[in-house]
Amino acid sequence: MALHQSVDAFQPGTVALVGAGPGDPELLTLRAARRLAEADLVLYDALIDPRVLSLARRARRVYVGKRAGRHAVAQEFINRLLVRAARRGQRVVRLKGGDPFVFGRGGEEALALAVAGVPFEVVPGITSAVAAAALAGIPVTHRSVSTGFVVVSGHAEEAFRPALESLAPHSATVVVLMGLGRMKQVAALLIARGWAAATPAAVLLGASTAESVVHSTTLGALQEDMVIENAAQPGTIVVGEVVRLREALLPAQATDVGTAERTYAHRSR
Amino acid sequence: MALHQSVDAFQPGTVALVGAGPGDPELLTLRAARRLAEADLVLYDALIDPRVLSLARRARRVYVGKRAGRHAVAQEFINRLLVRAARRGQRVVRLKGGDPFVFGRGGEEALALAVAGVPFEVVPGITSAVAAAALAGIPVTHRSVSTGFVVVSGHAEEAFRPALESLAPHSATVVVLMGLGRMKQVAALLIARGWAAATPAAVLLGASTAESVVHSTTLGALQEDMVIENAAQPGTIVVGEVVRLREALLPAQATDVGTAERTYAHRSR
Repeated sequence: MALHQSVDAFQPGTVALVGAGPGDPELLTLRAARRLAEADLVLYDALIDPRVLSLARRARRVYVGKRAGRHAVAQEFINRLLVRAARRGQRVVRLKGGDPFVFGRGGEEALALAVAGVPFEVVPGITSAVAAAALAGIPVTHRSVSTGFVVVSGHAEEAFRPALESLAPHSATVVVLMGLGRMKQVAALLIARGWAAATPAAVLLGASTAESVVHSTTLGALQEDMVIENAAQPGTIVVGEVVRLREALLPAQATDVGTAERTYAHRSR
Repeated sequence: MALHQSVDAFQPGTVALVGAGPGDPELLTLRAARRLAEADLVLYDALIDPRVLSLARRARRVYVGKRAGRHAVAQEFINRLLVRAARRGQRVVRLKGGDPFVFGRGGEEALALAVAGVPFEVVPGITSAVAAAALAGIPVTHRSVSTGFVVVSGHAEEAFRPALESLAPHSATVVVLMGLGRMKQVAALLIARGWAAATPAAVLLGASTAESVVHSTTLGALQEDMVIENAAQPGTIVVGEVVRLREALLPAQATDVGTAERTYAHRSR
């Protein structure tokens, strides 16, 4: 698997902000795996697969994650941990789900490191914004169907409202990360903006993991009180005509995706 | 580097649509590397690093790429090649730059395979839409600066106009892939829509490769005739206040990014 090339070594006293991808350990990058193997200390978030952590053979591994509604290690504290460990000469991996710079607060940690004069590197990861849909058989872009996509965070209304309420209906695929708690508001906003209630949508849970579930639905159904079990896990919402491609693509997919699929598209209450 | 887990083997007669990431072989995923090592046939695009191809030890490697303005292997022909090879019982990797479903025509190939009844899988790749910016020290999202991003293709005006001309000014980071030929139109469109001419922008060439160049500029300068050398290579344009973070982050970056940086922000003509 090694690429027998000259790769810059992980220097003592530096921090690597590493994206772990959507969940499947196989979707880690070669560089991420290499940095984990070289690390002295790994600070990791929730939902990192134990098989990924096991790649950090030499490292002390410290959980600093948070989940909605649970105890959170304050960002300030994580920043200080990173700076201190690097100043002690350690090779530090800050391991985050997805990509460090897509709603991962990687930018804040990078800034704290820059202010402290600690050298760092960014190792991009596969973001669920694209991969969750792809693994469910939904291309976020598709010739003559969608020529772009918008990615917003669903963690708060002020996070997604500015972009979504201005975007012309059907002018791009909409992807909402961490949006399970706000499905109703997102759908209402888009419908109020002129999107058709019949616009296909998908709610994707646990993408790339053995527990993945795909809910096929419509904006109209999302606007009603669609009930999602296990909504505590992170979920991705995809809205747009590209969702329709799933029906054509799914039967041929060689890997098992969205086994526990449920269709809400024609549900009536 | 191996993950000592049970991974489904690459079945004969199947196609893997594999994303190769932005360029650096180290940004390949573990699964992509594994699929290449198992492949009997690899159909690859332009700009795939030879070190990535060398991972396909057993495979016949066929170039089917195209570049702007050069000869293109027709999509129909690629689709037929994929179907035929799979039907002959080969393990086929269709290797694409970035992610297969982000302007990669992966959806079209997947549809052709589905219609032909050929099993396939999608192996997501790191998209330049996020990574090009990250590697230049620009987080596409950043708390209290940008809570979302829009990704469009710059290959034609009708591809980016609908989303960009509706999007409220400064409501999201704008990322234009393959946009070097349309920088002026993109900038004019955003300024006409109400974006400030002083909005920072970056033009990123050859992200993640040894030839990477970062041009720091503004929308106003992009609207003028900013000259980009080597504009034949693919480039990513990033527009938004997040571009400003680069100045704070760059000095601390451990890896060499954008060595040939040029700043156009204050250029006058």
